[in-house]
Amino acid sequence: MTIEKAKETFLSAVRRISALDAAGNLLAWDQRTIAPPKGLNGRAQVLGAVSAEAFRIKTSPEYREALDRLKGEALDPVFERMAFVARRAFDRDAKIPADVYEKFVVDAQISEAAWGDAKRSDDYGMYAPHLQRMIDYARRFADLWGYAAHPYDAMLDGYESGLTVKDVDGVFGRLRADMVALLREVPRIPALRPAAVPVEKQREIGLYLLAKTGYDLDAGNLYATEHPFSVGIHAGDVRVTTHYRESDPVSSIFSVLHEGGHGMYDQNLGPELRDTNLDDGASMGIHESQSRFWENIIGRSYAFWDTHFATVNRLAGGGLASDARAWYRGVNRVKPSLIRTEADELTYNLHIIIRYELEKEIAAGNLNAGALRDAWNDRYREYLGVQAEKDGEGILQDIHWSDASFGYFPTYSLGNLYAAQFAHALEKELGSLDALIGSESGLGKIGGWLKENIQRYGALEEPGDILVRVTGEGLNASYLTTYLRGKLLAL
Amino acid sequence: MTIEKAKETFLSAVRRISALDAAGNLLAWDQRTIAPPKGLNGRAQVLGAVSAEAFRIKTSPEYREALDRLKGEALDPVFERMAFVARRAFDRDAKIPADVYEKFVVDAQISEAAWGDAKRSDDYGMYAPHLQRMIDYARRFADLWGYAAHPYDAMLDGYESGLTVKDVDGVFGRLRADMVALLREVPRIPALRPAAVPVEKQREIGLYLLAKTGYDLDAGNLYATEHPFSVGIHAGDVRVTTHYRESDPVSSIFSVLHEGGHGMYDQNLGPELRDTNLDDGASMGIHESQSRFWENIIGRSYAFWDTHFATVNRLAGGGLASDARAWYRGVNRVKPSLIRTEADELTYNLHIIIRYELEKEIAAGNLNAGALRDAWNDRYREYLGVQAEKDGEGILQDIHWSDASFGYFPTYSLGNLYAAQFAHALEKELGSLDALIGSESGLGKIGGWLKENIQRYGALEEPGDILVRVTGEGLNASYLTTYLRGKLLAL
Repeated sequence: MTIEKAKETFLSAVRRISALDAAGNLLAWDQRTIAPPKGLNGRAQVLGAVSAEAFRIKTSPEYREALDRLKGEALDPVFERMAFVARRAFDRDAKIPADVYEKFVVDAQISEAAWGDAKRSDDYGMYAPHLQRMIDYARRFADLWGYAAHPYDAMLDGYESGLTVKDVDGVFGRLRADMVALLREVPRIPALRPAAVPVEKQREIGLYLLAKTGYDLDAGNLYATEHPFSVGIHAGDVRVTTHYRESDPVSSIFSVLHEGGHGMYDQNLGPELRDTNLDDGASMGIHESQSRFWENIIGRSYAFWDTHFATVNRLAGGGLASDARAWYRGVNRVKPSLIRTEADELTYNLHIIIRYELEKEIAAGNLNAGALRDAWNDRYREYLGVQAEKDGEGILQDIHWSDASFGYFPTYSLGNLYAAQFAHALEKELGSLDALIGSESGLGKIGGWLKENIQRYGALEEPGDILVRVTGEGLNASYLTTYLRGKLLAL
Repeated sequence: MTIEKAKETFLSAVRRISALDAAGNLLAWDQRTIAPPKGLNGRAQVLGAVSAEAFRIKTSPEYREALDRLKGEALDPVFERMAFVARRAFDRDAKIPADVYEKFVVDAQISEAAWGDAKRSDDYGMYAPHLQRMIDYARRFADLWGYAAHPYDAMLDGYESGLTVKDVDGVFGRLRADMVALLREVPRIPALRPAAVPVEKQREIGLYLLAKTGYDLDAGNLYATEHPFSVGIHAGDVRVTTHYRESDPVSSIFSVLHEGGHGMYDQNLGPELRDTNLDDGASMGIHESQSRFWENIIGRSYAFWDTHFATVNRLAGGGLASDARAWYRGVNRVKPSLIRTEADELTYNLHIIIRYELEKEIAAGNLNAGALRDAWNDRYREYLGVQAEKDGEGILQDIHWSDASFGYFPTYSLGNLYAAQFAHALEKELGSLDALIGSESGLGKIGGWLKENIQRYGALEEPGDILVRVTGEGLNASYLTTYLRGKLLAL
């Protein structure tokens, strides 16, 4: 195969896969938003078949030959990175024997269903044997993928390329100590008691916030789903969703800011990376840093609400809070609780650290499904001082382990850490965030900075390299701690 | 290739193509309903790539080999029909040289754009050279496809398999004479002047009508688009759309009934035909017969409005008409006009016959683009007594010719003819339609009859064979004439 032929074969495959992924993304988005109930089975079949077409391309002999041929060739930087990322994914996938992977996919579906049943029944015992099977798969995969120091490294690498236990231990160890200490110091603040807000009004608020923060509503829109998410379908079409509960308008406000952050990352991709395998962000953690940046660093700042509370409260019918200050204090209230997804900005990291520590032991073979519930409950008591009365509020709350997604959880806190570290770098360059946040042009400058420094690069660089390029140093937990101490202790 | 291998290859290809078509259908539906404006180019690329994947499968050597191997083998009836229909499409496509077809696709896009520009400018001259190119393509394709008697036969065959000029001449000749005669006799009725109805209310009316006529709202839903359509995405998901104009509630009411008829055809497909190449109805004309059946034979009957007018008028705010009788008369008003899509049930057929007669001459090489506008205007004066002041209301009104879809128009009137002939057969079996229409169980019986006799068969049979099986005879224009005379002269 000539180099020219290899380039053409590879590029054509990448474009075809990208189009099939776009179709799959729309099929999945539509399924979760508006598809009629009786189409469920038909949709699952179509989605499976479309993803099988992409898999067929990725595993074709010509594709492999083209990737082999391109190895070590001098290529333009974008092309070289595309080939590298494709090769890496190919090599990782190729290490799992096809028959093992097929069996895993089936078992994971069974496990996920068992998790749902067990959660509804608050009965971890029903689920434990399935979880053990997932643990066994995850450890087997880690051995096949290979690792230098710790089997958990191989799992982390699938979500945050290059991340190791050694790195995370250092950062999370510091973070845990800081958060536990801060938790003792933060002031007690009464809970917000906002009046109910009709769904249509909450949607108007969501659209207002998306427009103000820079999400392009001509290149996407806001929809309702049970679980909020953001999806880049293709160039010019990046959709976000939120959930609406009339009695809890706070929830949709911050989930819109969060998903809008993800959405802007995808909207601001450099045009030269569109329809390539570099179009989905640098990593889970970097993606999460953009959502957390808008949700927390901007969205939970006093400067933001000083400017926008009056409008949002008017749209809400006037019952969100007595004034911007009360609202600001309320949405920053810290209180240890059982459920990760409802946690405040501080204790959220402790929820993640608990999962990280457990996953590390699981990966090392020191913790199995039988002992996991007690280990979970012990750590919740120790770090957060809370105790789940029901398994559904404890070890059964998250879906992630049910399909062996060990290594995923840490990226949520990485997002928080990256966001605070990026914010520090931004302030060094553009000056005080508070001063910028108060005006639309200031928000535009912030969005522009994120785009120019992070978002437009897609997956052109490794997450760790982005961090160093943008902030001048590796991951450093002190920025998140400093940010949280500064805000929370002053409430 | 063994017969077993050929079967497996063919079936797998059919399922893959079906899934890709489903993805393409959703992408197109989404584009026309809710996709954001900036995604237009990205969407076009994705749609093109997904349809190229299907084309790749259909033109692969293995697929061709499997089709060849299956030829003449004894297979179960569904399988045999699937292979026959696939082979026929393959043979037809294969007769057009690939380079000619590629050039045609490009020229057709240019022609369609030129048509749009010309229509906006009311200037046929801008469009005529493009149309001539499309005429040249169509005649060349007809020669390549081949025909026994008339080049137009080859064009008709692409939309209504087996239909010939000889058949249509006989039926349309009779129909034209009958319609022209009836037009002189119909009573003059004043136009309806309904009060404006808000879009949300029109949507409620649409949902009411869909539910009453038997469209399954758990296997689809009603959406808004500029041009109404129905699309079967996959099993359990068949969507219909309508357009809303506040000042013209009549339009959305009948377009919902029409599209609901198409939708029910797809919803009522036999489960054994799902995900096959027989899942899209027997032909354009048979599909249209189902929509016309519900729009006109049911939806413009007095019996229907005697039962449903009160509810629909209440939903509309009370201003549709003074009573069911006035409404019934108004929605059946006959008045010659310029625009096909807005024509009444009688003159609609004359709009089609004009196009049919012109297309026949075009196909034979007796009429070119230069002479077409005069020929068009002459026939409108002769058959309908109206004269277009602007090209946009005359020869430029329809998009169909701009991509060489010659042979398509007749299927609209075939739909009317089939519908009346089916209605006659239904009455022979179930008794008077008027008696059935008045009750929900009666509407259910009508829907059940259509499903059992026509809809569940998909494309298992040729359109002509369905007609003979269900009605005991070939196409016969007298049923439509009798139906229209009976209704219109009694208004």
